[in-house]
This record gives sequence, structure tokens and C-alpha cells, in this order.
Amino acid sequence: MTRGRFITFEGGEGAGKTTQIARLRRTLEARGTPVLVTREPGGTEGGEAIRALLVNGPPGRWDPLTEAMLNFAARREHVRRRIEPALAAGSWVLCDRFADSTTAYQGAGQGVPPDAIGALYRLAVGTLAPDLTLVLDLPPEIGLARAAARRDAAGDRFERMEAAFHARLRQAFLDIAAAEPDRCRVVDATADPDHVAAAVAGMVDAAFSRAAG
Amino acid sequence: MTRGRFITFEGGEGAGKTTQIARLRRTLEARGTPVLVTREPGGTEGGEAIRALLVNGPPGRWDPLTEAMLNFAARREHVRRRIEPALAAGSWVLCDRFADSTTAYQGAGQGVPPDAIGALYRLAVGTLAPDLTLVLDLPPEIGLARAAARRDAAGDRFERMEAAFHARLRQAFLDIAAAEPDRCRVVDATADPDHVAAAVAGMVDAAFSRAAG
Repeated sequence: MTRGRFITFEGGEGAGKTTQIARLRRTLEARGTPVLVTREPGGTEGGEAIRALLVNGPPGRWDPLTEAMLNFAARREHVRRRIEPALAAGSWVLCDRFADSTTAYQGAGQGVPPDAIGALYRLAVGTLAPDLTLVLDLPPEIGLARAAARRDAAGDRFERMEAAFHARLRQAFLDIAAAEPDRCRVVDATADPDHVAAAVAGMVDAAFSRAAG
Repeated sequence: MTRGRFITFEGGEGAGKTTQIARLRRTLEARGTPVLVTREPGGTEGGEAIRALLVNGPPGRWDPLTEAMLNFAARREHVRRRIEPALAAGSWVLCDRFADSTTAYQGAGQGVPPDAIGALYRLAVGTLAPDLTLVLDLPPEIGLARAAARRDAAGDRFERMEAAFHARLRQAFLDIAAAEPDRCRVVDATADPDHVAAAVAGMVDAAFSRAAG
């Protein structure tokens, strides 16, 4: 059994991750590749219960390091109970957010030091890392307007945070991609969904044909 | 303003912590000492929400290290939002369980390595430690029978764990007390509540008259 590939999608609110994951799933499944689509925080029964604590309530509900700990607690369940078993069984795992989102949201966005996030990663996840991370990049005002248009209510805790927070997020994802160019690709998410999907498929093919060659 | 004292109560199920905390509170308040009584996991709005994740559900709901992370996430909220402010304002804090319970339940009981628990302590709590820890010690079969007698239902997740687990817990609390004799006192919790309360009050007076002298 060939181990599957672990592909994560990152980016701010309204970047189109859900749409692009669905598109890539169809592309891969059409080739006969087994795919697991999942998301963070969440992805398991326990992880979804932790997610409910994170996405509901007022912006100041949690201390930022508490929030990073809750994210990594959910992530540990997700890695051990779903992601690792799926990869071992040969599935490709397409995950909507992973640890880069903690680095961006709780680290750059809210001031948790990188060494604290690194310590939590080592404890909770160990050595697993994504084989490929696609950063869907767009100006936060466009993403937030998209996110608002698809909801009835005032948005979740993160959508309600200030504009400067979302600007820090975008820069954080670009910084992660620049620091880890072998793992990360930046995708222009302002383009229409068909163009973004074509760019994503091309990046996936390039990453894994190279790795397999 | 003189900083308050931080006293934690530890021990297995049915050891009488709630009763003894109420007794010590009355003793201290009769002397004019301001007291905050609190508990873990919990003690804040967010911490109680995390507690609900921990005490409900089947015994295997969480990976043990995930469980330790959730406990320390709740503990961080508790320390920063309630315990530290109360101590700074001069209150004595009487806390039903603290980090020793994570060392016992998730460490000795479920195999989380001590260095992982130490790393979580440093991240989540920092340098705060109890001034005095009272370990209420009794054979687990007596404690579990007491805990069962006061409930209608099948007990919480921990009461439903096997007998060997509870034996490891008891030994873990005794080991902690032996390793940190300046901080910890072991109390025979098989005695009647009046005798236990007198022993606890004597230990508290001895600890803090000495520290103040």
C-alpha cells in the first residue's frame, strides 16, 4: 500500500478553501485516487466539540495561548484518529486548515510566541507535516465581504475581529510560505474559481510528479 | 496588600475534598481571612465548558495527552482570570484539584510522560505553584463506594475506569507528596470528617505560621 499525500489549504476568511478543496477532490477522484476531505479545528467527534468552543462566543473569550492549546488538542485527535490512518491506508487527505492557521491566527494575529507554538506542535503532532500546503491569498477586505455574503448572522469570532488582525493574518501566511518554499505554494485567490482550481491542480501535479520521479 | 495563599486539595474519587474545603473555608473566614473556593477542571466560564468535554462521554473519548492538554488549557484560564487576581487581592485560594491531578490521572493513570506534563505546565501556568497541597489519601475502594453513594447515575468518566487505574492514582499522589515534602502533606482521609478537618487545619497553621515566622 502506497502511503497517501497530505495536502493542507490555508488562508484568511472567504479565500475559497472549501470550494477549491471540493474541486481538487473531484479531480483526484476522477483519476481513481481515494480522498479524505476534512477540516480544522474539528475532523473528529471530540475535535468538533472543541471547535464549538473556539468559533462561538465573544472575541476575548479565550487567552490566545489557551486558544492555541485548544487548537492543538483538537489537532492531536484529528491526526491520530483520522489523518494518519487515512494516509496509511493510501488516501490523499485534503485538510481545510492545519497548524499554519494556529501560527497565523494565534501567533501573528494574537501574539503567541513561535516557540510556544513549536512546543505544542512537537507535543501534539510529533513529526507529521503536510506534504504540500496551498495558501489561498487575497486582500482581507475581499475575503471578509465574501464570507459575510454567504452568512445570515454577524459571522464567527474571527470574522468579527478588527481589520488590522486580518491584515496580520494575510502577511503571516505569506511569511510561512516564504520560509518553507518546498512545502508551500501561494495561489492568487482573487481569480475566478475555475482559474484557481486549474492553478491548484497544476501545483499538486508538479509537487507529486516531482516527488515520485 | 499581603498576597494570599494558594492551597490545593488532591486525591482520588470520594476522598472528601469538597467537604474538607468547605470546613477549611469556615475556619479561615471565622478568622477574617478572605477565601476563594474554586475547582478544576473549571473555575471560569471557559474552563467549565472544557470540563464538560472532560467529564462526559465514554472512558476512551480522548487520547490521554489530548486530555492533559485540555486540562492545562482550562488551568491557564483559571490561573490568569481567577487564581492570580484573587491571590494578588489578598484572598486565600482553596482549589479542588490542580496540576497534581493531571500528573496522577493522565500521567500515572494513563501513561502521559512526565516531561510532556512538565512542558504543558511551563507553557500554561508558568512559575505559579501551590503554597500548600493537601493529599487526602484513602483506599480507592472506599472512595469509589462513597462517590457512588452520593450519585444517582453510573458516575463520571473517571469513576467508570478500572480498579487498577484507581490504584495507580493513589500511588501517584503519594509519590508526588514524597517527592515534594515542602509543598505537600498527606492526610488520612479514612477518618471521620471532624478528625480530617482538625488535621487539615493543623497542617495549614503549621505551614503558614512557619512561613510567616
